[in-house]
Amino acid sequence: MFPEGSHLFHNQNGTAPGMVLDLQGKLIITLPGPPSELKKMFVSEVIPYLINYYNIQKRIIKSKVLRVYGIGESAIEEEIKSILENQTNPTIALLAKQSEINIRITAKASDENIAQEMIEEIESKIMNKIGRYVFSTDDKDMEDIIAELLKKNKMTIALAESCTGGLISDRLTNIPGSSEYFDRSVVCYSNKAKVELLNIDEQLINMYGAVSPEVAIAMAEGIRKISNTNLGLAVTGIAGPDGGTAEKPVGLVYIALATQNGAIYEKHMLAGGRKGIKYRASQTALDFLRKYLLNLKN
Amino acid sequence: MFPEGSHLFHNQNGTAPGMVLDLQGKLIITLPGPPSELKKMFVSEVIPYLINYYNIQKRIIKSKVLRVYGIGESAIEEEIKSILENQTNPTIALLAKQSEINIRITAKASDENIAQEMIEEIESKIMNKIGRYVFSTDDKDMEDIIAELLKKNKMTIALAESCTGGLISDRLTNIPGSSEYFDRSVVCYSNKAKVELLNIDEQLINMYGAVSPEVAIAMAEGIRKISNTNLGLAVTGIAGPDGGTAEKPVGLVYIALATQNGAIYEKHMLAGGRKGIKYRASQTALDFLRKYLLNLKN
Repeated sequence: MFPEGSHLFHNQNGTAPGMVLDLQGKLIITLPGPPSELKKMFVSEVIPYLINYYNIQKRIIKSKVLRVYGIGESAIEEEIKSILENQTNPTIALLAKQSEINIRITAKASDENIAQEMIEEIESKIMNKIGRYVFSTDDKDMEDIIAELLKKNKMTIALAESCTGGLISDRLTNIPGSSEYFDRSVVCYSNKAKVELLNIDEQLINMYGAVSPEVAIAMAEGIRKISNTNLGLAVTGIAGPDGGTAEKPVGLVYIALATQNGAIYEKHMLAGGRKGIKYRASQTALDFLRKYLLNLKN
Repeated sequence: MFPEGSHLFHNQNGTAPGMVLDLQGKLIITLPGPPSELKKMFVSEVIPYLINYYNIQKRIIKSKVLRVYGIGESAIEEEIKSILENQTNPTIALLAKQSEINIRITAKASDENIAQEMIEEIESKIMNKIGRYVFSTDDKDMEDIIAELLKKNKMTIALAESCTGGLISDRLTNIPGSSEYFDRSVVCYSNKAKVELLNIDEQLINMYGAVSPEVAIAMAEGIRKISNTNLGLAVTGIAGPDGGTAEKPVGLVYIALATQNGAIYEKHMLAGGRKGIKYRASQTALDFLRKYLLNLKN
């Protein structure tokens, strides 16, 4: 199927391979069409091939991304104003993403170590100001960080999700080896499911409503108990577009974490459409868990 | 906060609004930065504003996308070769996406109705060839189609997910009003969770393994029974990158559907990395459900 003398690029994300053919110094490169396969193959296979082929010296432009959650872009600018002002090398760029802010520090230098030192100097200044909001300094996703923290603390977790509908479980199980710490999740959408799956007292739901601190805590304690895990994390809220009231508007979300020392909870008002609220609720819940796990270490 | 005389664009996906200011025929438009907010606002607010402002006549280029699952790109080309050959208006373009193929039919005409007729003629030819693989003809997602079919048939569903880790629940609950047909889901990652949450006989898991038709069916029947829903859908498989064997390799997935008339199942070998396999397993499971629900109507 492939021309003689061609070198194949392995496709880790699909079936069609890529190829490079060297015709007397002219390279013909073919890649699979789907962007998810093409882009990854380009980075993991083609770029190293080209660097090697043309014997390219890598230029020393180094950058690092601090991923920040739980504080807005303008609040960050305010907090690190003194660092941002007159800063030219490294440059500092803020980028608002779906549910986080990225701070990219980019240094230009004659040497990789120098660039690294320049970045670290700025990074530590920023961390001094807003470190508790920085969930990742090596471009890992929130779920990667959670996975690392759970493994480090040798803890297991189970989830009870209502408005997030399985999204938190999905994110946690995207990490290879997640069965080490993730035991189970129940998506208890109906009140009946909450009562039956988590042994929640129906009276509690009638008294406070499914979206309440009381029910969030009962969900977290219920899933922890039936799963026999170290931690139980629960989310209940109103993702919309319908179902909101003046008292409990769309975007209201309660997050509870049951531990061996009892339960803690947070109340949040999240913005966005249905999917946006679901995603932000999942991110907020994982960040709540992150902060708990980090304090364990101290 | 906004200049006098400015018109605000409502932000349905975040907090920052957009704005247009008409300075004697020169328009200044400001939009929020996050792409998810900006793009949607541009389409829903800015384009209609500009069309109206400049009194633009819409050009008659009409297109329609057929979304196809369960058949590869080259197999489609083979099936509809006679339609593709020498076809210039409408044009037919195939596009492979993460877990589906899109067929875009684009007609140019002097009049919208003529374009519509031209598209329908080609569409019906394509549907005659590969109609059973076309899950959407109006650009709806698989989960939208499932939602419509469940509502139409007045059926409720509950899920038991293993390797998909909550992704199917997440997708189904992305649809507003999903509580009408979606009752609950359990993500039973550990064997213990399968036994405890779904009342599966532990012997069955020991005898056939967690990834087997027997356990998939037991999961589907178990979740249907405890939830008292019309349907129970279950997925069990090996998402990798570890955990595969020669007999049960990474990518092996069993999908089972329990109905009032007993259970049916399918076996699939899916390609891709961990996330890719999870997504394809979710898509395959929903497509299995789609085919079942469509046959109910006949």
